[in-house]
Amino acid sequence: MRNRILKVLKDYDLDEIKIGTLGSHSALNILKGAKDEGFETVCICRPKERIIYESFNVADFIIEVSDFKELLNESLQERLIEENVILIPHGSFNAYIGNLDRIRVPFFGNRELMIWETDRAKQREWLERAGLKMPRSLKPEEIKGIAIVKYHGAMGGKGYFLITGKDDFYAKFEELKREGFVKSLEDVEIQEYIVGANVYLSFFYSPMNERIELIAIDRRYEPVDGLGRIPAEIQIKSKVQPTYTVIGNFPIVLRESLLVKALESAKAVVEVSKEIAYPGIVGPFCLEAVFDDNAEMHVFEISARIVAGTNVGIPNSPYSYILWGENMYMGRRIAREIKVAIEKDALGEIVY
Amino acid sequence: MRNRILKVLKDYDLDEIKIGTLGSHSALNILKGAKDEGFETVCICRPKERIIYESFNVADFIIEVSDFKELLNESLQERLIEENVILIPHGSFNAYIGNLDRIRVPFFGNRELMIWETDRAKQREWLERAGLKMPRSLKPEEIKGIAIVKYHGAMGGKGYFLITGKDDFYAKFEELKREGFVKSLEDVEIQEYIVGANVYLSFFYSPMNERIELIAIDRRYEPVDGLGRIPAEIQIKSKVQPTYTVIGNFPIVLRESLLVKALESAKAVVEVSKEIAYPGIVGPFCLEAVFDDNAEMHVFEISARIVAGTNVGIPNSPYSYILWGENMYMGRRIAREIKVAIEKDALGEIVY
Amino acid sequence: MRNRILKVLKDYDLDEIKIGTLGSHSALNILKGAKDEGFETVCICRPKERIIYESFNVADFIIEVSDFKELLNESLQERLIEENVILIPHGSFNAYIGNLDRIRVPFFGNRELMIWETDRAKQREWLERAGLKMPRSLKPEEIKGIAIVKYHGAMGGKGYFLITGKDDFYAKFEELKREGFVKSLEDVEIQEYIVGANVYLSFFYSPMNERIELIAIDRRYEPVDGLGRIPAEIQIKSKVQPTYTVIGNFPIVLRESLLVKALESAKAVVEVSKEIAYPGIVGPFCLEAVFDDNAEMHVFEISARIVAGTNVGIPNSPYSYILWGENMYMGRRIAREIKVAIEKDALGEIVY
Repeated sequence: MRNRILKVLKDYDLDEIKIGTLGSHSALNILKGAKDEGFETVCICRPKERIIYESFNVADFIIEVSDFKELLNESLQERLIEENVILIPHGSFNAYIGNLDRIRVPFFGNRELMIWETDRAKQREWLERAGLKMPRSLKPEEIKGIAIVKYHGAMGGKGYFLITGKDDFYAKFEELKREGFVKSLEDVEIQEYIVGANVYLSFFYSPMNERIELIAIDRRYEPVDGLGRIPAEIQIKSKVQPTYTVIGNFPIVLRESLLVKALESAKAVVEVSKEIAYPGIVGPFCLEAVFDDNAEMHVFEISARIVAGTNVGIPNSPYSYILWGENMYMGRRIAREIKVAIEKDALGEIVY
Repeated sequence: MRNRILKVLKDYDLDEIKIGTLGSHSALNILKGAKDEGFETVCICRPKERIIYESFNVADFIIEVSDFKELLNESLQERLIEENVILIPHGSFNAYIGNLDRIRVPFFGNRELMIWETDRAKQREWLERAGLKMPRSLKPEEIKGIAIVKYHGAMGGKGYFLITGKDDFYAKFEELKREGFVKSLEDVEIQEYIVGANVYLSFFYSPMNERIELIAIDRRYEPVDGLGRIPAEIQIKSKVQPTYTVIGNFPIVLRESLLVKALESAKAVVEVSKEIAYPGIVGPFCLEAVFDDNAEMHVFEISARIVAGTNVGIPNSPYSYILWGENMYMGRRIAREIKVAIEKDALGEIVY
Repeated sequence: MRNRILKVLKDYDLDEIKIGTLGSHSALNILKGAKDEGFETVCICRPKERIIYESFNVADFIIEVSDFKELLNESLQERLIEENVILIPHGSFNAYIGNLDRIRVPFFGNRELMIWETDRAKQREWLERAGLKMPRSLKPEEIKGIAIVKYHGAMGGKGYFLITGKDDFYAKFEELKREGFVKSLEDVEIQEYIVGANVYLSFFYSPMNERIELIAIDRRYEPVDGLGRIPAEIQIKSKVQPTYTVIGNFPIVLRESLLVKALESAKAVVEVSKEIAYPGIVGPFCLEAVFDDNAEMHVFEISARIVAGTNVGIPNSPYSYILWGENMYMGRRIAREIKVAIEKDALGEIVY
């Protein structure tokens, strides 16, 4: 598979490389970053989202599609390849397309790891092999304290909910069953709920510089954050239960001593990635963590590509500034890596 | 009215335009922005707030007044006009002066819309004509789930409170009556309370570039946010009920796909503004929204001038940077528009 | 004591001044700031934290120690003095070393005030003499509404907890006694709990410019913030009680009118500092405040040195930008002051 992509790349005109992505998720970040590094940009975009990319004037070329799945069409791929486009994948590639292995256009990064990312079991394997502490998966009998229940019908965290014990679980589970959302226990995942401070750590692994860079840190903003503004009595009387649908992100900084664990975890994740999917992680990845009462870090997810939370770090974050001393943010960091790889004639090392 | 202002403007010396405002609300933002664009600045300031504008050294001239209402005095107006001052209005103009139509000094923007802004019914008319979804106004019998009660005695959100049903409403209403805050049902407004993530979107409509720009996004910070740090049991026992008094703001970014609705709403609001108050919106405006469990946007208020939340975007926000590629923030954006209008000899198009 | 330090300083080669600190707390901020101002940097660092300072490449020289207390050793001090190092103290100096008066290496700032800072009674004296409003210390019988209980076993806010009345207090106090955390009432401090918005204001007093500068504002991020995302019913059933362990910080801005109180408080604190510990505050200090329902400011603590929350303002904050018009943050501000003092041959005025 990778060889097939590298073969396509071989015919690219290195003086005419364009950077492209789907118009969604973190495309503003990616496209602006590419322009800051001097690349021409291509935005593959649905009619309804066109207003975003036109308003911000980040796309030199807009290719309109009625569905992102059109990226699977040979004709569109042919066109992108002719234009020497390197695609920067983001969350919408997995969410709207799937079958990433059917796309011949070179991706920045390692698409095999993006596929790993979509499989909860493989994700857990990756993180546990890296020695990270994860919230435990529980059987109903094992529920102590608070647990979070996830089920397949729940898109993007929308239908996740908290419970406090076995009985509480079964009551809500029966309700879900009655409403047809789930059929059996196998349709739900019960996970230990770590109470604490959510922290999303966005790193960049640079094969060109052979180093891991911390680029930005954010905390998600969700309707469930509205709970904290409703008096407990009103919450109980109204039985309100807001969801985890992502609405936005806050920039944050992390207590300096906790960077040790964060950086060591990133390093371990990069090392394991080389074993599970050659050549391992390239470019952006995000560790999604909770720090508990003892400031211990629990990682509950990994994203093997740019996350939208990095938008908080445009044009810089405290961390990217300390490292780079200039405006640096994830989209630009990606483009910078491509630029350096072109100069070194080493694009094959960062593309898959 | 507008002609009267334009006539005043006619005698201004375009090479000597100064930018002025009341020393309050977002004056640091406005005055620093003016200086960044090369203007001299005038701060009309009460003795007690003088320490702010001196500490930050943003005012070339400080005019001390004992009350902001002195701006209604002919002598002060004459002085400002002689000095070729364009005033940048902000929230304190409405809060402390009123009667904005009695001021002859040219304002940046459209003062008629600032007057609309102070009238809840007109505001609702504007937003509904623009097709925006607003929280519903309720009669006591219509209360389902959570509602928020607002009454006139409540300054700046201080006395707003939440209720869960008709009975809960009447209990608290009777209390307000006993305490003399309200007399009849007409003195209170009951509004559907949308649980979710509060998001304040600050736009700039530029007549010079004929485009709408998203400049910054924030989320307010209020004493009620302290609730989320108090265990439910303690909340109930202590009957604590903190207020919505504005204390500050957090910078945030919005999920990219939600920008579609945000930008479309801004566009509709600008279009309707042209119908209701010629020449329509000029410069900054803010849509104050909540995104609910389904990431649907509900707009509960519009401000037709700079809001203090734009301070989070000094010297830039992710959005202003993507658009401008330089340090750009609301105060500076205003000054830039004035500068361009001076160059084009089109000041009359952005002043009222 | 101060004379002893100034005597050490006298032999420093002003062309070869280096800036150093312990590798912890806010060292990234301090060391990057020093480099931005052209200084060489020294990081005294334990093996486990080395990964941080190497990853961000902020230290020209790393001196590894097994324990920060080694800074008390004459040989290490001798080496730092030979290298013309000025140390920038931060929170870890107090937390890990104590006995700051046994260190001969010149500190930026006023080490005597750092010692004041560690004594709650002296802190209260300082703040009350400056006329600041503080939460009251309470006897069990005086508890009304919500109070917070602090005890010595509680490191960094970890074991603080809230209570609602005398009975509630005694119930929890007996529990602490049974578990051996406290012995008598003297081991706990009960403090009025102000419900509202927490705000951390970081100032810099510059003897070179004789002015107080507001450099950044943040709000802490702690596990207790996770409470606001757990429905009240679940909180009560699970008896969850997260702690105040610091995990990170959010950048915020403060409502402009509240800057009056903030700036006046800073001024008063600086003035009193001159009376209690000659020559008074030099450089960074932080007022840790809550703004209540009436937007009234209550100060519950002062830090007489850089706080980690200033990291949110790297490379700038709205406030530092308004004042400086360039990238300015606490670490850099310190280095700038040292640079100016070297030029004026006035290092003795800012070092102790």
